[in-house]
Amino acid sequence: MPRILHLAGAQMGANQRDGSRAQILERMIALLDQAAAAGAQLVVFPELPFTTFFPRWLLERQELDSYFEREFPGPQTQAIFDRAREKGVGLYLGYAELTEGGQRFNTSVTVAPDGSIIGKYRKVHLPGTEQPRDGARFQQLEKRYFEYGDLGFPAFRGPASWGGPILGMLVCNDRRWPEAWRCYGLQAVELMLMGYNSAAYDPLGGESEDQALRTFHSTLAVQANAYMNATWAVSVAKAGVEDGAGLIGGSVIIDPNGRIVAEAKTLGDEIILAEADLDACRQGKEKMFNFAAHRRPDQYRRIVEQVGAIPPG
Amino acid sequence: MPRILHLAGAQMGANQRDGSRAQILERMIALLDQAAAAGAQLVVFPELPFTTFFPRWLLERQELDSYFEREFPGPQTQAIFDRAREKGVGLYLGYAELTEGGQRFNTSVTVAPDGSIIGKYRKVHLPGTEQPRDGARFQQLEKRYFEYGDLGFPAFRGPASWGGPILGMLVCNDRRWPEAWRCYGLQAVELMLMGYNSAAYDPLGGESEDQALRTFHSTLAVQANAYMNATWAVSVAKAGVEDGAGLIGGSVIIDPNGRIVAEAKTLGDEIILAEADLDACRQGKEKMFNFAAHRRPDQYRRIVEQVGAIPPG
Repeated sequence: MPRILHLAGAQMGANQRDGSRAQILERMIALLDQAAAAGAQLVVFPELPFTTFFPRWLLERQELDSYFEREFPGPQTQAIFDRAREKGVGLYLGYAELTEGGQRFNTSVTVAPDGSIIGKYRKVHLPGTEQPRDGARFQQLEKRYFEYGDLGFPAFRGPASWGGPILGMLVCNDRRWPEAWRCYGLQAVELMLMGYNSAAYDPLGGESEDQALRTFHSTLAVQANAYMNATWAVSVAKAGVEDGAGLIGGSVIIDPNGRIVAEAKTLGDEIILAEADLDACRQGKEKMFNFAAHRRPDQYRRIVEQVGAIPPG
Repeated sequence: MPRILHLAGAQMGANQRDGSRAQILERMIALLDQAAAAGAQLVVFPELPFTTFFPRWLLERQELDSYFEREFPGPQTQAIFDRAREKGVGLYLGYAELTEGGQRFNTSVTVAPDGSIIGKYRKVHLPGTEQPRDGARFQQLEKRYFEYGDLGFPAFRGPASWGGPILGMLVCNDRRWPEAWRCYGLQAVELMLMGYNSAAYDPLGGESEDQALRTFHSTLAVQANAYMNATWAVSVAKAGVEDGAGLIGGSVIIDPNGRIVAEAKTLGDEIILAEADLDACRQGKEKMFNFAAHRRPDQYRRIVEQVGAIPPG
């Protein structure tokens, strides 16, 4: 029996720092309704969808805390869990996690159609800087506001109603790091879920990267890593001009050959849809990327024994 | 002072099993002359350019040995070294290496403009099978005819006349393995050189991959791995119908943003050219892929501790 899963990406337009969380949640629920009406079984939202991308600002503690969730679902997020359960649809949701012990992570969860959380991931590849950069119009302070993810890259199985796919999650910048994908590929992942907020300009200054190039980078990384790990992937943006800062769009659904199956056309709220045949992963997993037959880990030790680049002598 | 290196890829059309090695060498020298006349400083040839891609056949020892080089350069290859030195042009050359001790490798070297060999690589990711497959029209017996490369992924510096680039080499299937690229990225590589012979059909049987899809795979893998390691890349095919078996073309030169700068249009002998600004690698190496700032090797251990995929329990 074919294992078909109906996927949706729910690209979001910009949220504003002075916007209302209730209105953002309403927009998310409208996207969920639209995806469900189109037959989607799993809807992928962006990284940090409930607020503006606050790491662009150096913030006082009180405002910073207002962007974090002490419980998830909690008072300001429960409604989307309720609507998804009502529709029988699963979710990928990012959020800023504040643990009981006071740790902060850039987190995502996968929610099953029954409303239960079946997977949790904490972003490993935090970009940006810990200290604010003098004179920068926009900061990128993820290294200041979050700890590095401590859950590894944990694949998990989706429900039988989805065909029991092996799932993995990433958050934003993680999608550019082949190490992250390979850790899931080594767990035979069939569907990778990820959301992002990616600047439409060089966030560390400089003029050599514009919106078109940065959108190309985003799509290219997901296409190739999906191919090289023989997996489906859904990669979803928060897009548009947020707090005066541009965010790329380019949300995509990619097949295990690395081909674009669905792609957002706008920088606003927009649903993209695809019907994923999970067994299409088998060709790659059993032949070109039959890891057991072809990988040579004895030659890869530099990947774990070295952090930064060391030029030859 | 800008570090500009003039690159050429020398895509080759098919060689035939019953063809003459002298004629193949003549074609290679003609391509070299053409690239040199266009100003190229470094010319990249395909994997195993001097012969047909013999691993498609189950061969008797005598014929097999005729495809291997006991010395390199040797009697049947010296002429291209001589012409390159005469023109002051460097080379990437693949060859089937038979060592004094009787070991066999699928090897490549980089030759400086003075004719000296400045880098050597032995293919790590051997595709195919060790045993012939019953009923297959074409075999893929690299695992039978070669040993796995034992030199790791050794980056090295090119000559000052090239801007002193940090160079790395791969052979064919290696280009699909992000681990291989990352091992060079961790040596701050600025230019990756690789040749290939890639079937235009699924070499392990099956109908789901055709020439267009397999060319797309080849280009995608090089584009994304160049981007993710902020390096230039030259990836060059032996193409066309060889011994009745189709080989993809699609030779490309890729910039450190993963963009295609030059691309072959034919399945025959064809030169592609690009002017590479080596300092264009700096944007990626210093920002997005500043490995020292952003990599998390403690999370990557699965890459070296596991060979094959292990699904979650």
